[in-house]
Amino acid sequence: MAKQFEKKDIPKKSTNISEWYTALVLQAELADYGPVRGTIIIRPYAYAIWERVQQIFNEWIKADGVENAYFPLFIPHALLEKEKEHVKGFSPELAVVTVGGGEKLNEPIVVRPTSETIMYNTFATWISSWRDLPLKINQWCNIVRWEKRTYPFLRTMEFLWQEGHTVHETEKEAVGMVIKALDWYRRIYEDYYAIPVVIGIKSAAERFAGGKDTYTVEALMPDGKALQGGTSHNLGQNFAKAFAISFQDREGGTQTPWQTSWGLSTRSLGGLFLVHGDDNGLVLPPKVAPVTVAIYPIFGKDDANVLKFSQAIKNRIDKKGNTFPGKVVIFDDVEKTFGWRVNEGELKGIPLAIPVGMKEVESGNVRVSYRVDGLQNEELAVNTELSKHIERMLQTLQDHLFKTAKTFLEEHTRNVDSYDEFKEIMRTKRGFLRSFWCESEACEIKIKEETKATTRVKQLDAQKEKGKCIYCGKKAMYRWHFAQAY
Amino acid sequence: MAKQFEKKDIPKKSTNISEWYTALVLQAELADYGPVRGTIIIRPYAYAIWERVQQIFNEWIKADGVENAYFPLFIPHALLEKEKEHVKGFSPELAVVTVGGGEKLNEPIVVRPTSETIMYNTFATWISSWRDLPLKINQWCNIVRWEKRTYPFLRTMEFLWQEGHTVHETEKEAVGMVIKALDWYRRIYEDYYAIPVVIGIKSAAERFAGGKDTYTVEALMPDGKALQGGTSHNLGQNFAKAFAISFQDREGGTQTPWQTSWGLSTRSLGGLFLVHGDDNGLVLPPKVAPVTVAIYPIFGKDDANVLKFSQAIKNRIDKKGNTFPGKVVIFDDVEKTFGWRVNEGELKGIPLAIPVGMKEVESGNVRVSYRVDGLQNEELAVNTELSKHIERMLQTLQDHLFKTAKTFLEEHTRNVDSYDEFKEIMRTKRGFLRSFWCESEACEIKIKEETKATTRVKQLDAQKEKGKCIYCGKKAMYRWHFAQAY
Repeated sequence: MAKQFEKKDIPKKSTNISEWYTALVLQAELADYGPVRGTIIIRPYAYAIWERVQQIFNEWIKADGVENAYFPLFIPHALLEKEKEHVKGFSPELAVVTVGGGEKLNEPIVVRPTSETIMYNTFATWISSWRDLPLKINQWCNIVRWEKRTYPFLRTMEFLWQEGHTVHETEKEAVGMVIKALDWYRRIYEDYYAIPVVIGIKSAAERFAGGKDTYTVEALMPDGKALQGGTSHNLGQNFAKAFAISFQDREGGTQTPWQTSWGLSTRSLGGLFLVHGDDNGLVLPPKVAPVTVAIYPIFGKDDANVLKFSQAIKNRIDKKGNTFPGKVVIFDDVEKTFGWRVNEGELKGIPLAIPVGMKEVESGNVRVSYRVDGLQNEELAVNTELSKHIERMLQTLQDHLFKTAKTFLEEHTRNVDSYDEFKEIMRTKRGFLRSFWCESEACEIKIKEETKATTRVKQLDAQKEKGKCIYCGKKAMYRWHFAQAY
Repeated sequence: MAKQFEKKDIPKKSTNISEWYTALVLQAELADYGPVRGTIIIRPYAYAIWERVQQIFNEWIKADGVENAYFPLFIPHALLEKEKEHVKGFSPELAVVTVGGGEKLNEPIVVRPTSETIMYNTFATWISSWRDLPLKINQWCNIVRWEKRTYPFLRTMEFLWQEGHTVHETEKEAVGMVIKALDWYRRIYEDYYAIPVVIGIKSAAERFAGGKDTYTVEALMPDGKALQGGTSHNLGQNFAKAFAISFQDREGGTQTPWQTSWGLSTRSLGGLFLVHGDDNGLVLPPKVAPVTVAIYPIFGKDDANVLKFSQAIKNRIDKKGNTFPGKVVIFDDVEKTFGWRVNEGELKGIPLAIPVGMKEVESGNVRVSYRVDGLQNEELAVNTELSKHIERMLQTLQDHLFKTAKTFLEEHTRNVDSYDEFKEIMRTKRGFLRSFWCESEACEIKIKEETKATTRVKQLDAQKEKGKCIYCGKKAMYRWHFAQAY
C-alpha cells in the first residue's frame, strides 16, 4: 500500500536512534500520526503483531480461568475520586467529556485512563460470598492518558492494552496472581519479543496510584534507556474498601477481599521495534513476525518457471508449525526491481529471504538468508525436508536475537557505588545502574533531578546486602536498578 | 459468579417482552448497566459470543484481503465537517472532549461516532496510484453515539463493532464489495445467529449520512419490530472528494476512487437474545453458544461414580468438531440442588442437557435433551459414537431455531395495500408490511408520524410492479418493507 517506487531511506540507527526510530515507524508502515496530537494510527503490519500477542495471551489467561469482558469507556468523575491516591495519580492525565448530544453535561465524564474504578464499582455487586471468588476478568480496550510529550507506540495519548483485574479471598492468593501475570509478561518479552527483562518490584514513588505494590518487567533499549514493559499490581484492600467490596467467608464472617490488576500495552511494540531494528530497518523475531519468509523471484529469461518454482517453495514452507504462524510471501511485483523488493523485505524485518532465479530452478536448491548478520546462511534442497529446515532456521534466529539482546543488557548493567560515576554514566552511555539506595523518597527525587534516572526496579531475587545509599550514604540493604526511562 | 442460591425469576416473554428482555439480560449475566447513563458492561458470557463473531468474521475478511488496523478514538471536529451531509447526520449524537490534561482545549475533540473521516484523511496519504488499490481496512473498536433512549445491547451510548473501509478503482468493484460485506452479515445472522434477514437497500432518508446507497440486513424481533442487523454503504465518491483522495489510473490520468464502509455491532447480540429466548430464559444457537452441552450430575448414593461418568461423557463430547466450539461443562456444585442447576443452564440457553445419575452409570446410556420443545430428545450410548450424535443434535437445533424464526418472519410479513389496514396492523401485531411507496420523503415522514413505521428496506430482488403509494396513491413501482424499528 506504500507510495511505490520511492526509495525508502531511513537514517542510521547508530548515528541517531531517535530519528531512525521515527523514520522506521513511518517507512516500514508501522504507524502514522493521527490528526489529534499524540495519537497514532496503528497500521496493519504492526497491528498484526498486536493480534498475535492477543492470541497468545488469551490462550494463557483463559487456561487460567480469566474471562474476557468489556466495561465502558466513560467513567463518572465521582467514581474516580473514590480512591484518593488513585484520583491524585491520574487527574493530571485525564481527557474529559463535557458536552454530549449537543448539551453541556451536568457531571463531567472521564475517558478511562485505566478501569479499576468502573470495574470495582460493579464487582461490588457481583461478589457476595467466597463462592464468587476468585473473580478474574480481563479486557482488551483503548485507554487515554493526556501525555505532554509523545512518541509513536512508546508514549501516545491513546493506546491499546489488556487489563486484567482479579479479586481473591486471601492476600497470598492475590500475590500469587500478581506474580503469575508478571511471568506472562516476561514470557511475551523473552520468548516472543526476544527481549530479556529485569523482573521485580517498583519503589513507592513509582508504583500504581492507589495500589499496595507494583511489580514490573523492565527492558533496556539500545540507547541505554529503560522501558517499563508491563506492570502487575497487588492492590491490597485499598480499592475493595473504597468501593465497599466484601464477601462472606467460609466461616460466615464478613471479609474484605484482596485485588490485583495487570496490564500490557501496545507500548511494548515500540520496544520490540527499537531493540532489534538496524540500519536497514526493522528486524522482527520469527515468533511474532507477520511474514516469516520472503521469496524473491529474479525475473529474466523464464519468468513462468521462476514463478512456478517460487510457488512450489511457498507451498512446501506453508506447512511449518504453529510456533511461527507468520505468512510466506512471494514478492513478485514485476514492476519493482529485485533490489527494491529485497530492500523492502529488509525494511519490514522479514526473518528469512529466498531469492529464486533460473539457477535455483535448475539446481532444485535455494539459498536461505537471515535478516541479520552473524548467522550462517544455508543452501537447502526444495524437498519434503524444507519446511523442517526453515522452522529450525527461524528458531535459530529467534534464539540469536534474544542472545544478542541479553548480551547487550548484561554489558549495560553495571554495579555502581560512586555517585560521581553514576552521574557520568547517566550523562553518557546510560544503561541500568545497580546501586544501593536507602529507599527514602528524598534521595530518589534528588537523583532524578540531577541525573534524569529513576528507580526502575528492585529485582525479585535481590540479595540483602550491607550497603550505603549512593546519594546520602546512609544504610541501604538492596541494590536497585536505576535508569533513564521512556 | 452470580449471586448464588437466589432463585432467578424472569417475567414471561409472552406477557411483557420488554420486562422479560431486561430481566433476562441481567439474570443470565449478559450485561449490567454502567454508571454513565446509556452504557452497559458486557459480561463474559455475552462477550464470549462477540469473540466468536470476531473469530468467524476475521477469517472471512482476511481471506478476502482485508487487513485489520487501529485508528484513533479522537477526531478533530474540523475533520468531521469536511463532508457536509456526514457532519449533519452525526452532530446531534456526539460526545465532545473539551478538557485535556487539566486544560481547556482550543479545539474540541469528538469521540468517534464512526471512522470515515479520520480514516479517509489518512487514506489520502496512502493512495497515489491504481497500484495502491483496492485498499481494504477493517477495525474492531468502540463507538460512541449520544442516544436519548437506550436499551441494553440494542441501543447503547457506547457499543463495539467492526467497521470495514475500502477504496476501489471503479464503482463496479466498490458495489461488489458492498454486496460481499452484506452477504457476510447475512451469513452471521442466518448461519450463526439462526435469524433470517431481509436483504436490500435503504431509502434516501434512512441511508448513511454522506453515502450514496446504504444496503442492510433487517431482522424481525418477536414483538414485530425490526432490527437493522448490519449495514454496508456504497459511499460513491463523496468522501473521496471531500478528503481529496485521488489516484493515478492505468493510463496515467488522475481519478477519484470509489469507497465503501460496512459495520456490524454488538447490537446484533441484542437481536440474538431477543429472537430465540423463551419464558425459561436464553436460547442460544449451538454455533455461537459459549457452552454447548451441560452435564448435570444427580448426587445421591455414589457421587464418585456419577462424577467419574460425567467426566467420561465430557471427554467423549469434547472431541466434537470446529462447527460447535462451545465448551462442555459439568455443573457439579454440590451445594446447589439438581433443579437449581438445570434452571441455571436453561436460563443461560445451553443447547443440550445431560442429567447423569446412577441409572446412567449402570446402563451406560444418557438422555440428551434439547433446550427447546418440539424436537425429539434422544437416548444415546456413551461410546465412541457419542460426539458424532451430539454434533448431529446440535446441528438439528441450529436448523430448528432458524426454521422457527423463518416461519415467524414469513407469518409476520404481509402485503398491505390499504393504509387503514396498515395503521391497524402497526397499532396491534406489527411485523413487516410490504407496501407500495412512491419514494417521496413527504409520504415517508407522514407514515412515520402516523404509525411510527419507517421504510426498512427495498429487497435486493424486488420486482418492478405497477402499484399505488400506500399513502398518497400516486404511482409506485416497488413494495418496500415497512416496520417499527428498534
